[in-house]
Amino acid sequence: MSHHPFIHDDFLLETSQACELYHRFAKLAPIYDYHCHLPPAEIASNHEFPDIADIWMGGDHYKWRAMRANGVSEDYCTGKASPREKFDAWVATVPYCLRNPLYHWSHLELKRYFDLDLRIEPANADAIWEACNAKLPELRTQSILDHFNVAAICTTDDPVDPIDLHGAIAKQDLNTRVYPTFRPDKAYAISDPKAFIVWLKKLSNSSGITVSTFDDFMNALEKRHADFHDAGCRLSDHGLEQCPSEPCSTGEAASIFNRLMEGRNPNAGSELKFASFLLRQFGRWAAKRGWTQQLHLGPLRNNSSRQFARLGPDTGFDSIGESVSVKSVQHYLDDLDATGELPKIVLYNLNPSDNYALTTMLGNFQDGSLAGKMQFGSGWWFLDQEEAMQWQMNTLSQLGILRRFVGMLTDSRSFLSYPRHEYFRRVLCNLLGNDLKRGALPDDIELIGQMVREISFENAKNYFGLELAPKYS
Amino acid sequence: MSHHPFIHDDFLLETSQACELYHRFAKLAPIYDYHCHLPPAEIASNHEFPDIADIWMGGDHYKWRAMRANGVSEDYCTGKASPREKFDAWVATVPYCLRNPLYHWSHLELKRYFDLDLRIEPANADAIWEACNAKLPELRTQSILDHFNVAAICTTDDPVDPIDLHGAIAKQDLNTRVYPTFRPDKAYAISDPKAFIVWLKKLSNSSGITVSTFDDFMNALEKRHADFHDAGCRLSDHGLEQCPSEPCSTGEAASIFNRLMEGRNPNAGSELKFASFLLRQFGRWAAKRGWTQQLHLGPLRNNSSRQFARLGPDTGFDSIGESVSVKSVQHYLDDLDATGELPKIVLYNLNPSDNYALTTMLGNFQDGSLAGKMQFGSGWWFLDQEEAMQWQMNTLSQLGILRRFVGMLTDSRSFLSYPRHEYFRRVLCNLLGNDLKRGALPDDIELIGQMVREISFENAKNYFGLELAPKYS
Amino acid sequence: MSHHPFIHDDFLLETSQACELYHRFAKLAPIYDYHCHLPPAEIASNHEFPDIADIWMGGDHYKWRAMRANGVSEDYCTGKASPREKFDAWVATVPYCLRNPLYHWSHLELKRYFDLDLRIEPANADAIWEACNAKLPELRTQSILDHFNVAAICTTDDPVDPIDLHGAIAKQDLNTRVYPTFRPDKAYAISDPKAFIVWLKKLSNSSGITVSTFDDFMNALEKRHADFHDAGCRLSDHGLEQCPSEPCSTGEAASIFNRLMEGRNPNAGSELKFASFLLRQFGRWAAKRGWTQQLHLGPLRNNSSRQFARLGPDTGFDSIGESVSVKSVQHYLDDLDATGELPKIVLYNLNPSDNYALTTMLGNFQDGSLAGKMQFGSGWWFLDQEEAMQWQMNTLSQLGILRRFVGMLTDSRSFLSYPRHEYFRRVLCNLLGNDLKRGALPDDIELIGQMVREISFENAKNYFGLELAPKYS
Repeated sequence: MSHHPFIHDDFLLETSQACELYHRFAKLAPIYDYHCHLPPAEIASNHEFPDIADIWMGGDHYKWRAMRANGVSEDYCTGKASPREKFDAWVATVPYCLRNPLYHWSHLELKRYFDLDLRIEPANADAIWEACNAKLPELRTQSILDHFNVAAICTTDDPVDPIDLHGAIAKQDLNTRVYPTFRPDKAYAISDPKAFIVWLKKLSNSSGITVSTFDDFMNALEKRHADFHDAGCRLSDHGLEQCPSEPCSTGEAASIFNRLMEGRNPNAGSELKFASFLLRQFGRWAAKRGWTQQLHLGPLRNNSSRQFARLGPDTGFDSIGESVSVKSVQHYLDDLDATGELPKIVLYNLNPSDNYALTTMLGNFQDGSLAGKMQFGSGWWFLDQEEAMQWQMNTLSQLGILRRFVGMLTDSRSFLSYPRHEYFRRVLCNLLGNDLKRGALPDDIELIGQMVREISFENAKNYFGLELAPKYS
Repeated sequence: MSHHPFIHDDFLLETSQACELYHRFAKLAPIYDYHCHLPPAEIASNHEFPDIADIWMGGDHYKWRAMRANGVSEDYCTGKASPREKFDAWVATVPYCLRNPLYHWSHLELKRYFDLDLRIEPANADAIWEACNAKLPELRTQSILDHFNVAAICTTDDPVDPIDLHGAIAKQDLNTRVYPTFRPDKAYAISDPKAFIVWLKKLSNSSGITVSTFDDFMNALEKRHADFHDAGCRLSDHGLEQCPSEPCSTGEAASIFNRLMEGRNPNAGSELKFASFLLRQFGRWAAKRGWTQQLHLGPLRNNSSRQFARLGPDTGFDSIGESVSVKSVQHYLDDLDATGELPKIVLYNLNPSDNYALTTMLGNFQDGSLAGKMQFGSGWWFLDQEEAMQWQMNTLSQLGILRRFVGMLTDSRSFLSYPRHEYFRRVLCNLLGNDLKRGALPDDIELIGQMVREISFENAKNYFGLELAPKYS
Repeated sequence: MSHHPFIHDDFLLETSQACELYHRFAKLAPIYDYHCHLPPAEIASNHEFPDIADIWMGGDHYKWRAMRANGVSEDYCTGKASPREKFDAWVATVPYCLRNPLYHWSHLELKRYFDLDLRIEPANADAIWEACNAKLPELRTQSILDHFNVAAICTTDDPVDPIDLHGAIAKQDLNTRVYPTFRPDKAYAISDPKAFIVWLKKLSNSSGITVSTFDDFMNALEKRHADFHDAGCRLSDHGLEQCPSEPCSTGEAASIFNRLMEGRNPNAGSELKFASFLLRQFGRWAAKRGWTQQLHLGPLRNNSSRQFARLGPDTGFDSIGESVSVKSVQHYLDDLDATGELPKIVLYNLNPSDNYALTTMLGNFQDGSLAGKMQFGSGWWFLDQEEAMQWQMNTLSQLGILRRFVGMLTDSRSFLSYPRHEYFRRVLCNLLGNDLKRGALPDDIELIGQMVREISFENAKNYFGLELAPKYS
């Protein structure tokens, strides 16, 4: 039926200028994946995947959501169906995903990892299943990283997580450097004092500081911050519905902490205060050590009580929340800026209605100390798709400096997600190509190509300052 | 001046792919008009319209708004001017409506109903007036339904409304099936207890249950729900500024009701509680009987006190309200879902800034039991136009499954509105045609054509489950 | 490198229709600059600029924001670096501003004022510096106004400002008429009673009415309103984060005033009430004298405490705020409309998420008394760029009557900003040209050209009713 394969060299590139930008500049740039959720253990062990269902669908809540919306029962998403049954259910769903990013992503994944040009549809299920499984033995995690030219990976780690796996990977001397990211969401998750106290024990163990007082707590957290730094970490990350920025003195934070230690539930307003205190503190440490603080703002999580009880978190029942309060963001940034302790920030929002307000708010804290110090982050989660990537880049273009943008990250739990960098770059080159064609950019492909190179790799490399292998330094 | 008529076969279709999709797949699909405000009496009586002003402008608040914005006095909108004077005032306004959907709609209407290619402008007023009026005797309501290949119509009915007209229409054995829709907005409109009590009397009469207690009230409502079901109704509809989802026990609802029955104004917060209680109850009944519940969220009504005092409601002084609270929507859906009583839902919003958040919220309640169980409704009211239709379809595409979309409805009070289905289909085919042209969809016109057919008619037919005439079954 | 200059005749015009619309209709229209911040003194004195740094960068917070975001230290923005050093820092930043409106604006400015086709980049810094400075002696303010065919300018003036400079300009009998605009933001800036009392003294002086009571205060304000009217002023302007529309009786306003006069801080809620009272009063006076009231809603100002302490206001640390409350706007408009005292309104919003809601709210108060009485204002501040201008025009098109739009204004502090009218017209013609090409508008270039002419100049001329020089009458 098709005259040429769906995924071809010029996929999504609508102008000759876009093609030139992509093929001459974007394609060659290494990947700098400064935020993802890959398990370091599977990199350290050079993990081999048992079958295509496991690597393609395991833990992928995007696909589960699509399947449920397509009328597929839970058995075939997270349930007890066999790998092949789940695979078939997914393959039967794909033709219904036309215009959804999953349609593009899935075909890109088959093409880039398995060199398959088959349309994903039931008629091709057998062929896909067999071809992919046959290729899996050579697609171990480290060969994937090598194949995709990945210079750096930042995983996402609880302060209590061991980071020795990152050390173990470092010793293998891969071309890909793998660093932890400091993600202390549990440090301010105090609605359940028992769970908090359990977590504190882990913090005591990992830090070597027995946490009984608030001072111990802060010392243990900073000890881990320093440990992460020693392991090469240069980013922290925070996942929050809103930006907590209430006033909260050390004394107030200490008494909230003491109450928790007595096993008592926090008072009304204490959760927000405690999170505000800690986030500012993490911001100061980030500034002190030259880190970048990532703020992922906006999701509403676990919206279906029934499914949460049945399946737990991160199973595809999260969504975009109300607008992020731009005033809260202002308070947060201003508090740190006032004392000269504002670190580099990458702010990601989930409700695209907030793009414009948040980007201009970030602009108020560009202080000339570093190009692009305040970064409006790449389209995230539900926004990691063609139209929302364009919105993010157009917003940054009109209200800030696109050419200083640190670009794409996968944010993924899957080793099959590297083509999302390609996808991003195609969207970027296509935007720029259209502008070149219509004369909105100067007719200078070398200049625009340099910009593509910067956004694809060089800006991130310069901005985050992770140590890279000689090949990428 | 023009080289070809403004409305031509390929109107709004920018690519050869769009043309093929429209002409081979979309054009042929019947119309399934699952939500409108047509008066059943005018269908039952096969009404004939007195003149073009009456059928074209009567009750049309879109046109009145445009005329007022163009400096036309109220006399010529809702006032005492003659039909011809009103017609002339409208014709003089049309050339100022360039880029407004009224410009497209009005020309489509003249072409499709009257086969007129004349530009709507004062120079053509006489010709249009005469040609249209000459054709009206053959344009009776039933011939219009037949001409536009309308398989089903769902009118909008108060539970106290008689539904025998729908029965009378059924007996005429038209190819178009006409069903009522259960729209109980008055059941929770309790700010004026006197008006509420008057309405309760009508409810007593229509249900045959004398309403004096809260139990009577609920029994009478369910009796009407069952009556509507017996008349073939499979949809309810709710028009609300926000989604009411406060906790409210039966006891609380009963005491709110009792207070009203004493003629006392509701306490602060009671209106929201009462509406929350009832909406959930209507949701449960919808689930029980396999109905679809439509939620029309977001308008601010009667914004001009002066004009409301003068002209009453629904005269063109309503507008888009603040954002719909996505958390309220979450509470509503989750409450019903928790007990397995969540019906099929079509949620329409009026502020396009909410598109993304609401669509992802709906996605949390796709549970695999039915393809497209939770529907993000088609562009509504102010959003029933080219750019907002595209936003709605792009949102659904990126965040859900466009191919399961139940598509277009007229939501109109006018028998001249059927070309809005054509308009929607042209916009749909144009979107898909552009994607085909740029390679964002696989180059398979049969596949994409099947999707067009589904969205134009088949999805709605399968989803709503109304009984159709043999011709459409 | 480039095959043709970046700024050429058909810049941003993508279709032959757009080119024809621009060159035959838009380009020839005079400029009616009904809102700007130009200093009348520099017009009266026919000011000559010392160097290109002064005229190009002086007071330009857009450029400062871009430079800071590009890592340029404050010395080179507002600081003590020499004009040439600042110029060089800006020239080095421009190549990083690709896709930012500054890139287009800056090249347009060099071309239209200095006839320079040089790319703005360090390699050309010397050439630009020399060519521009050489031309400045002939680019005095009055020759700029003449060169750009400016029929009218409305400056922005505090009620206490002298308006005799406007009179002095009038006596010079330029073709450009220069009028004050009544901008009484200080009249409701009461958070600092001392500053307010200082301002009241200036009000006493300028009005000749010694202000000691609330009645004096209102009389003095109205005296100035009348003085401005006599000077030809026909617009007022209000810069507000939200639209103040709380109930506030004269008695309440008077007691708030009295408290201030005692040097006491206003009570909680008083600021909003006082502003609400005054804004309504200014609205009534505007209605009475046939003025237009401009509402600039939405900014958050002085977001960086550190920079505010260092540099003061209006230095590039303002941003887009949360959504404007559409209900507050409704209250404001409805209160005035209810008594027949609603003036012509131009409402500008800063958060584009509010475009749709606010435009439909304005539509509720179109009462047929004047075409386009309620105006949805042109893209403002952060929205004065290609994509946001398109959003504004598309919103107005879909929800109102674009053809009655009063069009563009510069809102600028710089005499180099007149090409923004050209920019706007190119965007407008390009939108219309695309619609013509795809058949969404009737194929009648004279009709659409007339619309371009109206939006470029004629609508504003008819709507605002300023007295113009014979050449433009």
